[in-house]
Amino acid sequence: MTERKGYAGNGLVHVKNPHLDSMDEDVLYHLNLGTKTHNLPVMFGDVKFVCVGGSPNRMKAFAQFMHKELGLEGDGKDLKDICAGTDRYSMYKAGPVLSISHGMGVPSISIMLHELIKLLHHAKCRDVTIIRIGTSGGLGIDPGTVVITDIAVDSFFKARFEQVILDNIVVRSTELDKDLVEELLNCSKEIHYFPTLIGNTMCTYDFYEGQGRLDGALCSFSNEKKLEYLKRAYDAGVRNIEMESTVFAAICGLCGLKAAVVCVALLNRLEGDQIKAPHEVLVEYQQRPQHLISIFIKKRLGLYNQMELLDNAFFLNK
Amino acid sequence: MTERKGYAGNGLVHVKNPHLDSMDEDVLYHLNLGTKTHNLPVMFGDVKFVCVGGSPNRMKAFAQFMHKELGLEGDGKDLKDICAGTDRYSMYKAGPVLSISHGMGVPSISIMLHELIKLLHHAKCRDVTIIRIGTSGGLGIDPGTVVITDIAVDSFFKARFEQVILDNIVVRSTELDKDLVEELLNCSKEIHYFPTLIGNTMCTYDFYEGQGRLDGALCSFSNEKKLEYLKRAYDAGVRNIEMESTVFAAICGLCGLKAAVVCVALLNRLEGDQIKAPHEVLVEYQQRPQHLISIFIKKRLGLYNQMELLDNAFFLNK
Repeated sequence: MTERKGYAGNGLVHVKNPHLDSMDEDVLYHLNLGTKTHNLPVMFGDVKFVCVGGSPNRMKAFAQFMHKELGLEGDGKDLKDICAGTDRYSMYKAGPVLSISHGMGVPSISIMLHELIKLLHHAKCRDVTIIRIGTSGGLGIDPGTVVITDIAVDSFFKARFEQVILDNIVVRSTELDKDLVEELLNCSKEIHYFPTLIGNTMCTYDFYEGQGRLDGALCSFSNEKKLEYLKRAYDAGVRNIEMESTVFAAICGLCGLKAAVVCVALLNRLEGDQIKAPHEVLVEYQQRPQHLISIFIKKRLGLYNQMELLDNAFFLNK
Repeated sequence: MTERKGYAGNGLVHVKNPHLDSMDEDVLYHLNLGTKTHNLPVMFGDVKFVCVGGSPNRMKAFAQFMHKELGLEGDGKDLKDICAGTDRYSMYKAGPVLSISHGMGVPSISIMLHELIKLLHHAKCRDVTIIRIGTSGGLGIDPGTVVITDIAVDSFFKARFEQVILDNIVVRSTELDKDLVEELLNCSKEIHYFPTLIGNTMCTYDFYEGQGRLDGALCSFSNEKKLEYLKRAYDAGVRNIEMESTVFAAICGLCGLKAAVVCVALLNRLEGDQIKAPHEVLVEYQQRPQHLISIFIKKRLGLYNQMELLDNAFFLNK
């Protein structure tokens, strides 16, 4: 069974659940929000861009960065965690930009996406673009390279996400928005201090054995077998490996959200397994997708000025 | 291909990776620890009990509780997050007890377990018992009931964990330590303010569709189909549903760690999907597995005094 993508002709987020209408209240448990306890349209009705990433601190830093970049009033350092009542996820808002952490792995981002999409639905948000800005292992590319995902594939290099529903395995498409990929690549041309490319992204359920690492607590294969697998992945167009892209593409696609995945590579997996770069280097790498997305958002909002570029580069490298 | 369980006759943690010996340094990236930057035997050599759970705040509270229960010197409120340099996981130590958060879902706990087990190996820890203390959805049991896992099963009620290694799917046993289950059940008899039982625990990759919930952003099945599935799970001995037990049992088993899963049920899934109990009630439920495990640890250490029971109950209900 293969499911079709959602279509939301009116720009509204498209929940595909007939039971929701009959619910008197919807408690978004892992976000510590709800339809009776919060006025979701007032809190979130103006959201146009949702950016998600694994680390709470990184998503806070991104919201503060966007607050400054969009010239919003007040001190971005005061941004409050909207999900402060729970430590499952963190959420920050800077004008039309919502920045949310999703933890690590398919199940963790999946819980967040279900509740986020219901939030956008209850808040009656329109024309929302959602982008995952994350970290990844690179494949045959220099550390620090930013990869815009063309196709999200599984461990077998297939563009599919398998969802267990009751006893059935349902296969979902992991297609992402092609126009958004091109738009993001165009934005990357404004940035000259790091390379950005389009490639396939492999999503695994495990960081060690599942990504062919030799340095986990368990490893049953040789360096040769590992390299043979990674080279096959490279030949299938895979340029980076992470742990959330397939389910992100599948759920966002079904709900009519235009979605993209933009991850920086922290290392080149053909050259090693351990992430050993100095802390400052890794911090700077993690700001690269943020910088790219800030240009994308400002261009969309008509706020982008090419002269800002040097300021941004200066800000990021401080 | 089915793998055999690990055996560590000398009580040492058993890493099953021949490549580790040849590594000059081991960076435990997601814990922000390493063999060259930290003296792991000094920091962790005395660890006998490792307790893991999803929420960082809960695992901090558990470490503080154990600090007090074990009568350790100093103020437990000062306990430092040993992984403070990263926001992926949190880790606290109270004497021989290590308390670590693992986030939500199989991939998230799997990353932590690989790095934790290497940590215990590098620190030369012996005779370590590891217990997951978590939250879950109950099946045909009252909210607040604590379930000690007999068998961890997947969405098809099978006692197996499928691990993708390179292109292969390897099936692993999810057997837990039977003696430990009995020992924990005996400890539960000291506690009279909540029920504890032994049952199978179903581990899923998703909180909504994967657990038959009607309240996600996506739902394609009826209430009848949901109940039919949950009743089949009940008939297969499942008494609670969570998202980490199979991989926890599989990895700990392979590495020779005696492991148990002790989760409280936050609701009865046969009666609903949403977690709506008041915050204070949910907080008290989450302390129940902690209370049980504190008795277990104190008994093991010869520190348990039945007269303490009333104090504990008082402390927990404050």
